[in-house]
Amino acid sequence: MSISSIPVLPRMLPGDYQAFDALFAQSSAIGATAGGGLHRLTASAEDGAMRDAFCHWLRERGFTVHVDEIGNIFGLLTLRPGAPWLLCGSHLDSQPDGGRFDGAFGVTAGAVTLASLARQMKQRPDEAQLNLAVVNWTNEEGARFQPSLTGSAVFTGAMRLEAALACRDAEGITLGDALSSIGYRGKPLPELPLAAYVEIHVEQGPHLEQQRTQLGVVTETWAAIKWQVTFRGEQNHTGPSLMASRRDALLAAAKTIIAVREEADKQGLALHTSVGRLETAPNSPNVVTREATLFIEFRSADEVLLQAIGERFAQVLQAIAQSTSTDVSLTHSQFRPRQKMDPSLAQRALAQAAQRGISAMPMRTVAGHDAISLSYRCPSCLLFVPSHRGISHNEQEFTASDDLYRGMDLLMALLADLCVQPPAPAGGVS
Amino acid sequence: MSISSIPVLPRMLPGDYQAFDALFAQSSAIGATAGGGLHRLTASAEDGAMRDAFCHWLRERGFTVHVDEIGNIFGLLTLRPGAPWLLCGSHLDSQPDGGRFDGAFGVTAGAVTLASLARQMKQRPDEAQLNLAVVNWTNEEGARFQPSLTGSAVFTGAMRLEAALACRDAEGITLGDALSSIGYRGKPLPELPLAAYVEIHVEQGPHLEQQRTQLGVVTETWAAIKWQVTFRGEQNHTGPSLMASRRDALLAAAKTIIAVREEADKQGLALHTSVGRLETAPNSPNVVTREATLFIEFRSADEVLLQAIGERFAQVLQAIAQSTSTDVSLTHSQFRPRQKMDPSLAQRALAQAAQRGISAMPMRTVAGHDAISLSYRCPSCLLFVPSHRGISHNEQEFTASDDLYRGMDLLMALLADLCVQPPAPAGGVS
Repeated sequence: MSISSIPVLPRMLPGDYQAFDALFAQSSAIGATAGGGLHRLTASAEDGAMRDAFCHWLRERGFTVHVDEIGNIFGLLTLRPGAPWLLCGSHLDSQPDGGRFDGAFGVTAGAVTLASLARQMKQRPDEAQLNLAVVNWTNEEGARFQPSLTGSAVFTGAMRLEAALACRDAEGITLGDALSSIGYRGKPLPELPLAAYVEIHVEQGPHLEQQRTQLGVVTETWAAIKWQVTFRGEQNHTGPSLMASRRDALLAAAKTIIAVREEADKQGLALHTSVGRLETAPNSPNVVTREATLFIEFRSADEVLLQAIGERFAQVLQAIAQSTSTDVSLTHSQFRPRQKMDPSLAQRALAQAAQRGISAMPMRTVAGHDAISLSYRCPSCLLFVPSHRGISHNEQEFTASDDLYRGMDLLMALLADLCVQPPAPAGGVS
Repeated sequence: MSISSIPVLPRMLPGDYQAFDALFAQSSAIGATAGGGLHRLTASAEDGAMRDAFCHWLRERGFTVHVDEIGNIFGLLTLRPGAPWLLCGSHLDSQPDGGRFDGAFGVTAGAVTLASLARQMKQRPDEAQLNLAVVNWTNEEGARFQPSLTGSAVFTGAMRLEAALACRDAEGITLGDALSSIGYRGKPLPELPLAAYVEIHVEQGPHLEQQRTQLGVVTETWAAIKWQVTFRGEQNHTGPSLMASRRDALLAAAKTIIAVREEADKQGLALHTSVGRLETAPNSPNVVTREATLFIEFRSADEVLLQAIGERFAQVLQAIAQSTSTDVSLTHSQFRPRQKMDPSLAQRALAQAAQRGISAMPMRTVAGHDAISLSYRCPSCLLFVPSHRGISHNEQEFTASDDLYRGMDLLMALLADLCVQPPAPAGGVS
């Protein structure tokens, strides 16, 4: 192919940024917090309102909307009937008092970009090799319902639909009932053969900003262990009951929180750990806690380290139970292996960035993303825009518009490139 | 007075035990838990139903019922118009999944005993020097609303009515609104000059059982410090955010829980400590906790020790805040001084026990009780029946009927003794 015959690929047009600004502003308003953040828990009234607005936006722009049984929303644009699909999206749910960008940027940017790409491809009907689809995955955050990544895991078959619908929130409401209550428990999705999945997201860490790099292309993920651990002690009066006879589940929980942190301190930068959620009963000021459940995470790029810590920590928990006269049980255990994203897609994303004078670097993600779920099903690519000070899951989460626009420039370039030249089906569970 | 002229005082009659059994069974049923305990939080529907049943019981037996502005229920029996009052009672609210005896025994035993005493005194009209009243104090437990001892503290003037009505539960509902919703926000109580206050309660500790003693007469209380402490950190993603940059309020809380326990371990039997309640936000599995509030207790008979620990612990909290990059504030602080119960009433209770062949011993109480509140207003006496294994604030809390009946025998003897020979007005804030 000679240089003169290289086609000019579709690109973001000036009106596209405005369309994005309008849709993103709408997303930022539905569930907005006084502190400038977003509180839009899965299948809440706010989530329902945002889903309604998103479906309306899609239909107005010619997308065919389909809601599947776990509430994932697909917006379909057919360019070549019968051809595989190029899927792009993220999630519209947020953490409690979370940020406006996490997930919502990827869905709104994906929708606007695909709508523009479809319009532009219709001017060159022979070139499109793929159909286009945007997606909003249900319950990525895992805030109201655990585990996280629910919608994408059901889509790929990693999680059974029935198990996902049966997940309960802290009030005992199932995800299935919550989705029904907002009208988003849909029907089985017709066959949707995927050529590739692309997601754009805020980094949620400080690396791009610290390294003054405009965009990140994720090449692999950290592995993670996620445990739910319950200590059971004995309810008693905090006054007269003798200290030596107490069986205090909250004391056991406190020792565990510190032990989890100490694991990270021992391993330097190689291990991230946390306890983010703790449920106790009866949680009354003058009653010794009878039961405490902790949600523990260990994350590392080093699976061998992680497995060793998991084994050692089971012993740590037993020792804590013994020292507090409590019983301990591991009620849920999840291991997320380290996963490589498709290398050829990452290479194509980096090449597109270079062609456009955008500084980009390959990087790892510590956080889970729907793109990780999808990577087990089809070639997948995850792009990062910078997060100011790396703050995320926080009302102060912030990415400047220029960074968002630049991300969409690369997203458009990659989607257009893939649409005219689909990737070869790659490894992974299909 | 010659031996032959010693009057036979009123005593418990066989039908009185049956009346008690019936009323106590009713109390045990309203808010009963599957595990054999009681879940009857202040101003809940169950509390409302129990209050209704109690008022009905009182009216049927000739008591005049008065509900005051903080919901305390008084049942009045006039024996000598214009004379001071002999008040006896406890509380009908319970801890979450608490025991059937704590508080409910004292109210039901008091009501049955006073009703019988009044009937018997009417046969000897010249002897009664006092009128009789039973009371159910609002929110003794401090489980749903803090602080505890609310109703009795408002009655004595230790707490302002407006402040008490404004206390909020975890859902933000005020005590005033909660009382209104069950119909128990009443009217100012007419003047009720008190000659004495008597309360009978389960021990909630193991000492009577361990020392094979049938009854306890409380001579003094431990002092207590009750603190609410809030740590503020920064909400962030538990995955990518760097461990070194985290400001984890739950980690600070965990360190505090352990430090509170270590204080007790250092002091041996002289100090009881606990953290029974912990509130965190946002309490999501993959979010670093931005805020954690702990409810801390230090209890000791040694006020000097307690003050020293309070001062030292303020520094401990600062050090914990510094080590976790959080901010700490003491949002509520309460000091309950050590308090002596009226020695002459205790002496009379011990003498009555001896006369009846009941083994009784003077003892201290670690737990707070409404009788402590009342002791600042009038001569007050607190009697303990044994608690099996000392277990309390627990569904398994248990005292055998024989122990309950024996307690009522002494209660009757003491009340009758006081009724015919009122105590001299004693010290304390009146």
